[in-house]
Amino acid sequence: MKFLLFSLTLLSVIAHAQNKRPRELGIKIGILKTGQNNAITDVAGLKVGQVSLIEGEKIRTGVTAIIPHEGNLFQEKVPAAIFIANGFGKLAGISQVQELGNIETPIILTNTLSVPTAANAVIDYTLAQKGNEKVRSVNPVVGETNDSYLNDITGRHVKKEDVLRAIEIASSGKVEEGNVGAGTGTICFAWKGGIGTASRVLPAKSGGYTVGVIVQTNFGGVLQVNGVPVGEELKQYFMNDQLNDPADGSCMIVVATDAPLTARNLERLAKRAIFGLAKTGGIASNGSGDYVIAISTAKQLRVAHNANTKFYEATELRNDDVSPLFLAAIEATEEAIINSMFAAQTTKGANGVIQALPVDKVLELSKKYNKLK
Amino acid sequence: MKFLLFSLTLLSVIAHAQNKRPRELGIKIGILKTGQNNAITDVAGLKVGQVSLIEGEKIRTGVTAIIPHEGNLFQEKVPAAIFIANGFGKLAGISQVQELGNIETPIILTNTLSVPTAANAVIDYTLAQKGNEKVRSVNPVVGETNDSYLNDITGRHVKKEDVLRAIEIASSGKVEEGNVGAGTGTICFAWKGGIGTASRVLPAKSGGYTVGVIVQTNFGGVLQVNGVPVGEELKQYFMNDQLNDPADGSCMIVVATDAPLTARNLERLAKRAIFGLAKTGGIASNGSGDYVIAISTAKQLRVAHNANTKFYEATELRNDDVSPLFLAAIEATEEAIINSMFAAQTTKGANGVIQALPVDKVLELSKKYNKLK
Amino acid sequence: MKFLLFSLTLLSVIAHAQNKRPRELGIKIGILKTGQNNAITDVAGLKVGQVSLIEGEKIRTGVTAIIPHEGNLFQEKVPAAIFIANGFGKLAGISQVQELGNIETPIILTNTLSVPTAANAVIDYTLAQKGNEKVRSVNPVVGETNDSYLNDITGRHVKKEDVLRAIEIASSGKVEEGNVGAGTGTICFAWKGGIGTASRVLPAKSGGYTVGVIVQTNFGGVLQVNGVPVGEELKQYFMNDQLNDPADGSCMIVVATDAPLTARNLERLAKRAIFGLAKTGGIASNGSGDYVIAISTAKQLRVAHNANTKFYEATELRNDDVSPLFLAAIEATEEAIINSMFAAQTTKGANGVIQALPVDKVLELSKKYNKLK
Amino acid sequence: MKFLLFSLTLLSVIAHAQNKRPRELGIKIGILKTGQNNAITDVAGLKVGQVSLIEGEKIRTGVTAIIPHEGNLFQEKVPAAIFIANGFGKLAGISQVQELGNIETPIILTNTLSVPTAANAVIDYTLAQKGNEKVRSVNPVVGETNDSYLNDITGRHVKKEDVLRAIEIASSGKVEEGNVGAGTGTICFAWKGGIGTASRVLPAKSGGYTVGVIVQTNFGGVLQVNGVPVGEELKQYFMNDQLNDPADGSCMIVVATDAPLTARNLERLAKRAIFGLAKTGGIASNGSGDYVIAISTAKQLRVAHNANTKFYEATELRNDDVSPLFLAAIEATEEAIINSMFAAQTTKGANGVIQALPVDKVLELSKKYNKLK
Repeated sequence: MKFLLFSLTLLSVIAHAQNKRPRELGIKIGILKTGQNNAITDVAGLKVGQVSLIEGEKIRTGVTAIIPHEGNLFQEKVPAAIFIANGFGKLAGISQVQELGNIETPIILTNTLSVPTAANAVIDYTLAQKGNEKVRSVNPVVGETNDSYLNDITGRHVKKEDVLRAIEIASSGKVEEGNVGAGTGTICFAWKGGIGTASRVLPAKSGGYTVGVIVQTNFGGVLQVNGVPVGEELKQYFMNDQLNDPADGSCMIVVATDAPLTARNLERLAKRAIFGLAKTGGIASNGSGDYVIAISTAKQLRVAHNANTKFYEATELRNDDVSPLFLAAIEATEEAIINSMFAAQTTKGANGVIQALPVDKVLELSKKYNKLK
Repeated sequence: MKFLLFSLTLLSVIAHAQNKRPRELGIKIGILKTGQNNAITDVAGLKVGQVSLIEGEKIRTGVTAIIPHEGNLFQEKVPAAIFIANGFGKLAGISQVQELGNIETPIILTNTLSVPTAANAVIDYTLAQKGNEKVRSVNPVVGETNDSYLNDITGRHVKKEDVLRAIEIASSGKVEEGNVGAGTGTICFAWKGGIGTASRVLPAKSGGYTVGVIVQTNFGGVLQVNGVPVGEELKQYFMNDQLNDPADGSCMIVVATDAPLTARNLERLAKRAIFGLAKTGGIASNGSGDYVIAISTAKQLRVAHNANTKFYEATELRNDDVSPLFLAAIEATEEAIINSMFAAQTTKGANGVIQALPVDKVLELSKKYNKLK
Repeated sequence: MKFLLFSLTLLSVIAHAQNKRPRELGIKIGILKTGQNNAITDVAGLKVGQVSLIEGEKIRTGVTAIIPHEGNLFQEKVPAAIFIANGFGKLAGISQVQELGNIETPIILTNTLSVPTAANAVIDYTLAQKGNEKVRSVNPVVGETNDSYLNDITGRHVKKEDVLRAIEIASSGKVEEGNVGAGTGTICFAWKGGIGTASRVLPAKSGGYTVGVIVQTNFGGVLQVNGVPVGEELKQYFMNDQLNDPADGSCMIVVATDAPLTARNLERLAKRAIFGLAKTGGIASNGSGDYVIAISTAKQLRVAHNANTKFYEATELRNDDVSPLFLAAIEATEEAIINSMFAAQTTKGANGVIQALPVDKVLELSKKYNKLK
Repeated sequence: MKFLLFSLTLLSVIAHAQNKRPRELGIKIGILKTGQNNAITDVAGLKVGQVSLIEGEKIRTGVTAIIPHEGNLFQEKVPAAIFIANGFGKLAGISQVQELGNIETPIILTNTLSVPTAANAVIDYTLAQKGNEKVRSVNPVVGETNDSYLNDITGRHVKKEDVLRAIEIASSGKVEEGNVGAGTGTICFAWKGGIGTASRVLPAKSGGYTVGVIVQTNFGGVLQVNGVPVGEELKQYFMNDQLNDPADGSCMIVVATDAPLTARNLERLAKRAIFGLAKTGGIASNGSGDYVIAISTAKQLRVAHNANTKFYEATELRNDDVSPLFLAAIEATEEAIINSMFAAQTTKGANGVIQALPVDKVLELSKKYNKLK
């Protein structure tokens, strides 16, 4: 069956190749420039690995791994923060990140009921890594959204091996979007959601830093695509009397930057990502778990697990110089969410079919609202 | 000089009468219905009072008072919460509201350096109120934004009497917007900001509750008016190379509802107001103090200062039923911000002139982007 | 080998039977009365189950399960809050408890690297429970401390079955203390730590409520037993030049009460438990994960998973009446920690031997300091 | 009348000279060494100034000013954090300190209803300071406790001049304790409270840093003096049936260190000060406002208001090396509280008389419990 799985994944890759991204289609969100791949991997050294589980009629789930840098993460932790917009979710690892201001493992996204399995895998991965022979405590960071409409979530189909494989195959460069990895079975604005990514690069006078975002979209509200009222026009939105959409679900957002920020300013950056979610029409409904994890990959800020000094020499951006990064995080998050929906494809799963966002209609509406460039 | 002041205020009222609100001009934000006045005062019993200080060349400031209900607020406190999107500000009263979950005074908005003066006035007001003879501790809630470009802020022109008068003249019904009260000297997206208000009423099946919002707009970013890229089109936005706009400033937001919510769910509601700010293009820059105060006016939830029972009987909405209120807070906040800018007028003050939002051009752009209804 | 395990556990029970509790020995902490068993199970309906894993030379760990009430916890959630004194730990489930104000599963304590395994078990338990057939999302609450000195923690010896068994065998009445369950391998003030419990009952005029506490002690500092400077006298304390004790480790604390409190006041109660830890000389060192979970078992405050009403009728204690509960939580926590150490026994494990607190010497010191009653 | 005031203050100084501090009397709290003066001023460069208002029968209040360093605080801000143990209080300036991680003014302590007056004074002070001519925004940090039993608090007797004078006369060296400054009219454990201070110096191998604490004590609970149950023995404690003591009131705590810590670790340090309060028997009752402000005076961590670089070069202690500072903060806070009570004197004020802690009896009890060294 796994063989079938990989075949399907392959087909899926081919299919994806045909989907153009919104920006290629003329939907240009924001005023800042994107990075080379318009992806979180534009932050140098950061890698993404995804494993999709698509089997039979009912399994539609997967794993997305974000690896902040190429070294031993436990030995060289990255500054990090977490902002919780709405805490109806099961993100593992929160308190230690908030207390110590760093992350010491790959960041894993998966489905709600697979968080412990993924956390176990991350522990295994870390303990087994060369140089970590003496490690006795690991803080796995694992986020999730609930894909139980399309996926047989109670079957607990994500296995430790899937998580390890996502870490193993992680690479820089382009990042697959849509029905892939942790986004294989997600739903967004009652259309098919998935994984999306985007990036922004600041002008040189603002430091030339890159901000990259990856999202796992599984939430609701009243969809707007770059200001175009797609939800309203297509009569698919929260509180539409004709529908019965609770707008629940969740959104996991990871923001990475090479700008030198430590935890306090990373938390502020994380808060801004939610502004991007807001601009797509998300409302963070009661049942939504909306979390932002922000990390800095700046080399001078890495936190050695063992150091032969009492001091941490943190040369970081001053408070006064962080606002451009805020705008970058907002734009990249908004675009990453929209990207996830453009890439996602109609999916039949455990409890029915979820339609892809009708890209043609969105383009038509974008034209109607004069938003195609 | 005070005489002159009141004359000017009067003129200002007349001028305002000529400004149509965006909704009247065809700019319809969101999918929910507004309340009767599309104002925070649509929440029954809530009153707003404003005193504008406009004197000579340099004084452009004032006070806006929000009175949650008509009784003795100290003796019958209202459930309340505060969410801090960016804490670069001087809001007084935060910790007690967060600890006890209620507010026991009028809520005052004014300029940054006048917070203590306003707090003193609120203490005086409370101590002097009938029934409060034994009161020895008061937690004044006073928010602010910094109007120091148009206003001689270091002159500290707001006096205790101005605050007491704003409380005294507070009324229900229509709320003046733009250059008035605490918005007299504020700047938003590098145009003239001010006071704005809006409301939403939920459909009966969602409880029929009203959510009202009032804002004091003094922040920056990349302005969008109902999805129309006004900032970009008019080349006035944060990080435009031609300008040097730090996008600083602040936004004070007060959200009121008659829905029965206690502190925990009010905090969640407060968080959603920031989604509305995000949709206008605000970025909560480093130097911005962006605060949301949320209150419930539901009578059964009032907190008696002295009770002859050990119990608080709180019949409140279940978590599962709050999402429609979230959408209402988002929409009302977005519209209140835009309303503040449509009403605000070009102002010459202490350090120069700030132009009003060019409403004609915004309407033109709204037409270009097919957003006039 | 499991057979051996249960034999050892049995022996351990017998041995424990000979250990008197501090209170029986004349060490009377605080001014309030204890409940019948001086245990968290004095809170009516609450049950505790413990499984100890003691095998060979290296396995010294286990599971302690706290079951708030006898019904279906997922369908009838309990109001809850979490306070984090120092977040260097891996407590699962934090954000959802803080957002929604309730707990929907048993609370599990175990070792650091077994949190995911225990979380998986709790999901299984919940999904399998009658009445939960439609459940697709579960928020397991699993705390931990690191027992890696005495226990082969990287062997990951806690299995799903151990967790399910701890839930299954949970009972009211007396609670075993010391080297048992999640306390099997813990270390406290460089002596053997373990599980401890205590309770307080308020006088009738303060409501007659019960507050019960259970702790998993694995932390450091400068031990004081009811004000007696045991650490100093026995020259075993943090920063003693002769030793090299980092005072690291952690303390998990669960506070339960039948007093009607919802999340906001439960969080306040949770904060007070740390006062009890402070009184034992704990310092919450950098490497310590010190968490308090507080719940109310009051029947009228249970949160139905599905309700046929929009309203939650929460009759709760007024803010003004919670202070006696605060004192009760402080006293019960202090005593529970001391109880854990009096019951714990010298243990040889994976990396050496940890001595039990020398009870005789502590009694002698208590006499020297005139603290035996 | 002011003349009388200063005379009284003078007498008070003389009287104080006769009060020995607990440590001189053999009450030795903790295991670490004190600084030279066992005062917050042992942190080099930090100054304290106090103005006591003692007039007629009813005025018993004052101001205590803490000046972190001798330069221009606004231009060279100090890293800072605030921890709120119980937020029933009116501390001004919270959110900006928490957002930006620094303090830019003297820290003022006074009575509850005088916070705005003191905040106004701090604004005046800052605006008037040389080098601050362009300042348009100031975040005054002003804490308080409620002295309304002994003081005619609603008379609002603290004037701007009193605050400015406290700043002006601030000095290093010894710090007056007891009925002085902001502690003139406070009550602690139902005896007379006041201002107290203490310090600790770490051993060289832990960095040799100094931690100093100053407290304004006005709270309740069950007093313990270095583990001696003074409250119980003297039958004066919260929940004693014979009394009717709500244990309300508050405690303001300022912790200063020359150790290089930025906001995140300062917040952790602030949390530990509350452990010291817990050890005195404080319970942080419902009506208590218990706040800790922590600052680092380390020169290399000062935050320039205007910098000609985008970077903040923060060489700070690693997380792993902060635990000794935690112990120092705990010990110094416990001792500062006890010091405040030993120095405080029986006071007749607006609503009656509050007895001083009966030092002789406390010493007798300390002997009974073998705690005099």
